[in-house]
Amino acid sequence: MPTSIDPASSALADLTTPALVVDGTLLQANIDAMAAVLPGPRLRPHVKAHKTTELARRQYAAGHHGFTCATIREVEGMAAAGLGADLLLANEIVDATRIGAVVERGARVTLAVDSPETIEAAASGGVREVVIDVNVGLPRCGCDVADAGVLADHARSLGLSVRGVMGYEGHLMMVTPYAEKQRRVEKAMRTLLQAHEAVGGELVTAGGTGTYQANAWANEIQAGSYVLMDTQYAGLDTPFVQAFWVLGTVISAHPTHAVADVGLKALGMDHGNPRVEGAEVQFVSDEHITFRPSDPVRVGDRVLVTPAHIDPTIAMHERMHVVRADGGREVWPVDLRGW
Amino acid sequence: MPTSIDPASSALADLTTPALVVDGTLLQANIDAMAAVLPGPRLRPHVKAHKTTELARRQYAAGHHGFTCATIREVEGMAAAGLGADLLLANEIVDATRIGAVVERGARVTLAVDSPETIEAAASGGVREVVIDVNVGLPRCGCDVADAGVLADHARSLGLSVRGVMGYEGHLMMVTPYAEKQRRVEKAMRTLLQAHEAVGGELVTAGGTGTYQANAWANEIQAGSYVLMDTQYAGLDTPFVQAFWVLGTVISAHPTHAVADVGLKALGMDHGNPRVEGAEVQFVSDEHITFRPSDPVRVGDRVLVTPAHIDPTIAMHERMHVVRADGGREVWPVDLRGW
Repeated sequence: MPTSIDPASSALADLTTPALVVDGTLLQANIDAMAAVLPGPRLRPHVKAHKTTELARRQYAAGHHGFTCATIREVEGMAAAGLGADLLLANEIVDATRIGAVVERGARVTLAVDSPETIEAAASGGVREVVIDVNVGLPRCGCDVADAGVLADHARSLGLSVRGVMGYEGHLMMVTPYAEKQRRVEKAMRTLLQAHEAVGGELVTAGGTGTYQANAWANEIQAGSYVLMDTQYAGLDTPFVQAFWVLGTVISAHPTHAVADVGLKALGMDHGNPRVEGAEVQFVSDEHITFRPSDPVRVGDRVLVTPAHIDPTIAMHERMHVVRADGGREVWPVDLRGW
Repeated sequence: MPTSIDPASSALADLTTPALVVDGTLLQANIDAMAAVLPGPRLRPHVKAHKTTELARRQYAAGHHGFTCATIREVEGMAAAGLGADLLLANEIVDATRIGAVVERGARVTLAVDSPETIEAAASGGVREVVIDVNVGLPRCGCDVADAGVLADHARSLGLSVRGVMGYEGHLMMVTPYAEKQRRVEKAMRTLLQAHEAVGGELVTAGGTGTYQANAWANEIQAGSYVLMDTQYAGLDTPFVQAFWVLGTVISAHPTHAVADVGLKALGMDHGNPRVEGAEVQFVSDEHITFRPSDPVRVGDRVLVTPAHIDPTIAMHERMHVVRADGGREVWPVDLRGW
């Protein structure tokens, strides 16, 4: 499904560039495609990808009432927006007082813990519910599977309710072919299920956009990128389509190259250069992208830049401009930024 | 000069991490070292590196009253902060009405132009002064040297005052050895001086932290990174020292690795991984840095992460915490972010 966003459209002429633009129709198509495969509580959308409560409302409307967060600020913002029915902070923190305050105000927040210190921080901060975060192969957070039961006991001894286990198979998102991915995800999830036997609770939470379908063992999936996508995830075989871009303006045009005003401060660069349709991207500077267009461009022309990595890109912008099917536009604040 | 900032200090214990921390003494030492080599108007500090008007005030106090900006927002913010005596927007724009409004309010703003379109935008937007931006070897903005005189004539025909020429030798910042850098900078600046002969005006503006000393041909240098530095510029032989870090908290610790809460959303990654003192950085995720410490660390420990690229890193943070020599602290808003 191609986008109907035309960067040259006069409807976008008033936008200051660089600007995040979203195709609202494609966004909704992505939300619907995911809800068809993982309906209701089978998906716990991760808000770290978009950091936008207005977008989370669309995911809620599609039937997903629990959300995953990566930061305390995301939890606070989601709760303040009335989306705090069941928030999982899928990350360790050593001071949980701000989360305790959110719980005090009536939201339900579950905290990932993987050590005695983070369990004690949860309890002393006023958090009531946790999941035990288990290392399933990605060398990041998560306890050894052998320690999961002991940690759960420790949490319960401090009065915490242990809702289950979490394990993020982030190292498997881009594995191909699909059968190989499935085999390795199963192995990772066998580890998580082993932890679950020792821990108990109703939640076995894992996954992401790269394993949303391959992971048949978790009972909820934490996908986020699927809503808007990026050039890296586009390499996978999924029903999800690119639905956001950074709109730029050509500010300098030469026989050998052109320059638009979309730079390092408007693009997450850890996955490499972004793409520009019909052009070869040469390099990106703080406020510039230099590219070689196949057809000549002129100063003042608009271009759509497709980011290589959605999450850090969106976190750099104050707002997204959502273009509706009728050509109308809404502004959604990217209101969950910062820490 | 080593930093006196101790990440374990109780004076920093109240900071929510990730947090930008600045050693105020080293910052001032960098400002003083630069002012000794390029006093007063010989330096036109580039604010894109720090995006912080409080920091710009220190550069002003050191004798530099003209500043370089990369975005319209930076110009607006500097003027609003009372630092608009002589601002150069060293970048092309196709709609200059916001700059015209800043000029109308009493600031002096000079705009870089490199095409008839950007000249016409300057004139119609209410800008009164421009410099002709000349390509001196970096394939980005800047006209061909052969076109500089014609563009200057065009600008004057529209009533604009042409203050001189600009040429950014950004491709030469990291050239070594120094003699080779100097040779290539001279060649680039010969091009700029050739353009200057055709254009006239008092300004021959160029350079950056990587060429502040090698560029003896420009009459003002646009350095920015020197104030706070990064791991890339640390590779050069300069008197400037690292003066800022991203403070993080260890949230997970294991026999093989540890994880702190400083991720892709807190670090410009286009120059590669950051450094962590006494540790080998393994990889960086949205909200995490995974590293192998040489000495064991514990959950709750604080770490200083040294970014690889200053400009996009600082642009991700809302504020910087400046630690004074007496241990006291000031909060400076990073108030020039966005567009």
